[in-house]
Amino acid sequence: MKKLINEPADVVDEMLDGMVAAYPDGVRRVDGTKVLVREDAPVEGKVGVVSGGGSGHEPTHAGFLGPGMLDGAAAGEVFTSPTADELSEMIQACDSGEGVLCVVKNYEGDVMNFETAGEMAEMAADTDVAQVVVNDDVAVEDSTYTSGRRGVCGTIFVHKVAGAKAAQGADIDEVQRVAEKAIDNVGSMGTALTSCVTPEKGEPTFDLGEEEIELGIGIHGEPGVERTGIMDADAIADELTGQVLDDLDPSGEVATIVNGMGGTPLMELFVVNRRVQEILGEEGLETWNARVGEYMTSLDMCGCSVTVLDLDEELKELLSAPAETPGLKV
Amino acid sequence: MKKLINEPADVVDEMLDGMVAAYPDGVRRVDGTKVLVREDAPVEGKVGVVSGGGSGHEPTHAGFLGPGMLDGAAAGEVFTSPTADELSEMIQACDSGEGVLCVVKNYEGDVMNFETAGEMAEMAADTDVAQVVVNDDVAVEDSTYTSGRRGVCGTIFVHKVAGAKAAQGADIDEVQRVAEKAIDNVGSMGTALTSCVTPEKGEPTFDLGEEEIELGIGIHGEPGVERTGIMDADAIADELTGQVLDDLDPSGEVATIVNGMGGTPLMELFVVNRRVQEILGEEGLETWNARVGEYMTSLDMCGCSVTVLDLDEELKELLSAPAETPGLKV
Repeated sequence: MKKLINEPADVVDEMLDGMVAAYPDGVRRVDGTKVLVREDAPVEGKVGVVSGGGSGHEPTHAGFLGPGMLDGAAAGEVFTSPTADELSEMIQACDSGEGVLCVVKNYEGDVMNFETAGEMAEMAADTDVAQVVVNDDVAVEDSTYTSGRRGVCGTIFVHKVAGAKAAQGADIDEVQRVAEKAIDNVGSMGTALTSCVTPEKGEPTFDLGEEEIELGIGIHGEPGVERTGIMDADAIADELTGQVLDDLDPSGEVATIVNGMGGTPLMELFVVNRRVQEILGEEGLETWNARVGEYMTSLDMCGCSVTVLDLDEELKELLSAPAETPGLKV
Repeated sequence: MKKLINEPADVVDEMLDGMVAAYPDGVRRVDGTKVLVREDAPVEGKVGVVSGGGSGHEPTHAGFLGPGMLDGAAAGEVFTSPTADELSEMIQACDSGEGVLCVVKNYEGDVMNFETAGEMAEMAADTDVAQVVVNDDVAVEDSTYTSGRRGVCGTIFVHKVAGAKAAQGADIDEVQRVAEKAIDNVGSMGTALTSCVTPEKGEPTFDLGEEEIELGIGIHGEPGVERTGIMDADAIADELTGQVLDDLDPSGEVATIVNGMGGTPLMELFVVNRRVQEILGEEGLETWNARVGEYMTSLDMCGCSVTVLDLDEELKELLSAPAETPGLKV
């Protein structure tokens, strides 16, 4: 295993220290936890918007902390949910009295721990807690770690929309409403060319032959829907985009993300984006905003995912609102 | 070889189409070339700032197109300089009559072709062309493709500083002056954990054993200064940062980039940044701005580089100026 790490057991802790060292004016760590919050949290008069989950998906989650997006981000160990205790500390640290919306990706551990954490915060500090569960992966219905669909890269849009609404001073019901609207209108599907290697295990999470790729992969190396021979970029774009569009059936304007899984160069993501945008055009859709880069990764996995968000005027307005956060490229 | 590409020979062309498809309101392609320019180039009353070089370093160069940074970016084939003809077309497309500054990384092909291109543009369109050569890599004095030091990730600071000065309406001499100031005050050094694989060749550019890393590596897989056993992240940060500081001898405030080489997850870059910032603190330096992410890559190479820029008030003001470009994270 070749990784830029020290002791594998320290990797999350040291990553968080490295994030604070990079953005000391932007984020701070809640003492004794693996929770990062906006330096000025809780923000007076504003609903808190928080997220979290296992580490290994960077820039998700802490990369989206900042004005206009997240107030708090809890990091679990690699591919492991944060504890309910830490999630509850995060929720309380981000509550200015207006309540806190938790954006949760649909994995059993995350959903359960966020639910418990919400109850803990309500009991401990009378915090008004709401929760939305992102389940945008159209590839599989149930999976290794989920009942229902997995939450993947579409989560970025939910963070952005909820963060923007909260920044405008909306109440918690309104922030939850727009987050749910984004969830209802987003779909994603990914593919892996290689497995990822977790620091603790030090070897590939799953085996994929030299001539194989896996379609419909999850972001923790969970099985996808089909293992097939190597396909070219256009064929992969056709498959991923086609399945998302079949499921979502958007019309009019969309926003897209061609997301890298961690080990794939940006060059290749743009090659995929070329075909994704062609397909959308052929389907009579207009891309209002396209993002290409790493948003929801799986350590060093090579591969990509395609996310499509069906837009209306409200979602467009919230997506265009200002956000100051290191993970969100223009 | 597993890559998200179609025909290897088409990869640069299709990448550029994918960039235009992502940012149709921001960039356009100069017909019949591999040159991308700002959609509104040439910008009236403003010195043009352009760059370019081989492909495979994305988001460099076209990822830095936009208000406050680059007006033009020429893409060669992978790891190959753009032709003088195309560079000349770029220069002319970015000249509003105020002249054009070319930011060139110090590789013999790039320097020669940019020089020829400048002469061509001067002859063809009476364009006032200036050139600066970035040579920030402290690892080696001469190398495979260079006389003198190689230009690597410090180039990003030169783009930002020159782009900001030009956006303020400065004349070409002033834009050149601040670019040279940035060049005089920046140093970088990198390491590779793995080779990169070019699309055309389809196999590693060089061999690096399972238990080996290379220090002082270039961004095209050129040899570094030392091949050694696997080191942990802190030891690598010590080595890279130490050598940059020895060479640069900064004082007071600095800006830093911990840059990923393409295949390394963001998690690992933050682990490296943790130690880099510790070292700077131990040396009595204050980090005014820290960037962590992929800025100057080498296809799918795993590894990182550390860049330090010694600051003064003018450089700080130019670095803080607004820029709207997809490659520059907050």
